[in-house]
Amino acid sequence: MKKLINDPQNVVLESVRGFALAHPEHVAVHEDPMFVARAEKKEDGKVALISGGGSGHEPLHAGFVGYGMLDAAVPGAVFTSPTPDPILAATQDVDRGAGVLHIVKNYTGDVLNFETAAELAEAEDIKVTSVIVNDDVAVEDSLYTAGRRGVAGTMLVEKIAGAAAERGDDLEAVTAIAQRVIDNVRSMGVALSACTVPHAGTPSFDLAEDEVEIGIGIHGEPGRHRIPMATADEITDQLVDPILKDLNLTSGEKTVVFVNGMGGTPLSELYIVYGRVAKRLKDLGVDVTRSLVGSYITSLEMQGCSVTILRADDEMIDLYDAPVNTVAYRKGM
Amino acid sequence: MKKLINDPQNVVLESVRGFALAHPEHVAVHEDPMFVARAEKKEDGKVALISGGGSGHEPLHAGFVGYGMLDAAVPGAVFTSPTPDPILAATQDVDRGAGVLHIVKNYTGDVLNFETAAELAEAEDIKVTSVIVNDDVAVEDSLYTAGRRGVAGTMLVEKIAGAAAERGDDLEAVTAIAQRVIDNVRSMGVALSACTVPHAGTPSFDLAEDEVEIGIGIHGEPGRHRIPMATADEITDQLVDPILKDLNLTSGEKTVVFVNGMGGTPLSELYIVYGRVAKRLKDLGVDVTRSLVGSYITSLEMQGCSVTILRADDEMIDLYDAPVNTVAYRKGM
Repeated sequence: MKKLINDPQNVVLESVRGFALAHPEHVAVHEDPMFVARAEKKEDGKVALISGGGSGHEPLHAGFVGYGMLDAAVPGAVFTSPTPDPILAATQDVDRGAGVLHIVKNYTGDVLNFETAAELAEAEDIKVTSVIVNDDVAVEDSLYTAGRRGVAGTMLVEKIAGAAAERGDDLEAVTAIAQRVIDNVRSMGVALSACTVPHAGTPSFDLAEDEVEIGIGIHGEPGRHRIPMATADEITDQLVDPILKDLNLTSGEKTVVFVNGMGGTPLSELYIVYGRVAKRLKDLGVDVTRSLVGSYITSLEMQGCSVTILRADDEMIDLYDAPVNTVAYRKGM
Repeated sequence: MKKLINDPQNVVLESVRGFALAHPEHVAVHEDPMFVARAEKKEDGKVALISGGGSGHEPLHAGFVGYGMLDAAVPGAVFTSPTPDPILAATQDVDRGAGVLHIVKNYTGDVLNFETAAELAEAEDIKVTSVIVNDDVAVEDSLYTAGRRGVAGTMLVEKIAGAAAERGDDLEAVTAIAQRVIDNVRSMGVALSACTVPHAGTPSFDLAEDEVEIGIGIHGEPGRHRIPMATADEITDQLVDPILKDLNLTSGEKTVVFVNGMGGTPLSELYIVYGRVAKRLKDLGVDVTRSLVGSYITSLEMQGCSVTILRADDEMIDLYDAPVNTVAYRKGM
């Protein structure tokens, strides 16, 4: 295993400490229990947003803490859900009386631990709502999930719900718009290579030199099937087809298209994939109203990408366009 | 070779087309000869900045075209200098009478082809100045270079000189500040794995499972030496020591610190490296005034990173902080 790490058991702590040192103007890190909050807290009763989950998907979630997106992120060990303790501590820390939305990716551990934390917070009279992101159309159940997995669509949920909170929506309204994004966002991914969890030390699965895994999860969980290495266009079509089938997009509808890198894939390749997705939607008469290309929800150093399509209404587009100022994602300010 | 590409000969064209499709609000792409310019051109006589070079280092340079940085980028084939033609065409396109600064990384092909383009432009009465970025302290001469190579420090040159042009500095002043950054910026990199140029199809060098190359170039050119795999702290020290020796920083001086990913290294690992660099500078009493962590100047899917340190004066910090709005780097707007 070749990684720029010191102690495999200490990767998350050292990385989060480096993150805190690099970005004191954006974030404040609490180490025990560990969560990442905004450096400057508002006292104005804004609804607070929290997300979290296993580490190894950086910049998700800590990179999205800041104006316009999250109020706090709770990183677990690599590919391992955080326990209820830090989730509760983050919830207490960010609540300003207007309540807290938990944005939870649909993995069994995350769902249970966020649920427990929410119950504990409610016992302290903090209002908590939750949404479960389950955008991955690849598989119905998987190694870590009952139902669909939550993957790259999570970023769009955080962006759009974060903007709604920033404009002053109440907890019910912020929760509703988050759920509306979830109901309209679909993703699917591909792996060209596996990744190695530091404390495991060996790749999480084997993939032959001439095959790729279609429908991969963000922890290297099995996807739908393996195919021989193919062209970018052919692989992209295998991601786009199931999404289109599920979303049932029709001509004239607006979308946000997001091509996400898994961590080890060059940006230049993501743009080749983006070009194919854009062509497919254009052929259908679907409007690519906004687009995003980059490695935002990663699986350590895995090579591959995912395609996410959001069926967007005008309000979602406005909120997507709203200013955001986080370490990993900025616009309009 | 596993890559999300269609035709190895067509990688740059398809990628740049996807980039143009994804970001029409930021860039306009000219295909023949190929260069990437700002979507909206100013007519106000601002000094224009152009950079370019072989592709495979994305988001450098096209990702930095926009307000506050470059006016145009000229991408060559992968790891291959663009010819004078597109450089000349870009120079003609962006000149508004105030002249054009060419920011050139110190590789023999880039230097020659930018020089030829500058002579051709001057024959058309376009004022052109050039600066040569040579921040890599690893080696004096290399496979592609006489003198030091230009690596990640280039981004800081583009950012700071770009801000100077935006505030209205004339060509002489913009060139002078670019040169002042070059005189005070030093970098060194490490590779944990090689990368594969698409049209070559095989890795550009071999690195054993238990060794890393210290002082690697951004095209996989040999560095100083190979060492057995070591901890992040030990490897970081091998990058920081030569930089410190060369820069001769003293207590109380201000710096911008930039930890850059080579393309295949997780962000979490870059933050571990950043933590070590920050500690080393703190121990010396050097002020890390600003910091930047991310994969901005890559070598395709290479695993590894580079450390860049800029000895910064107050004017440089102000220009570094100035608003920028490009596809790959935004702040303050």
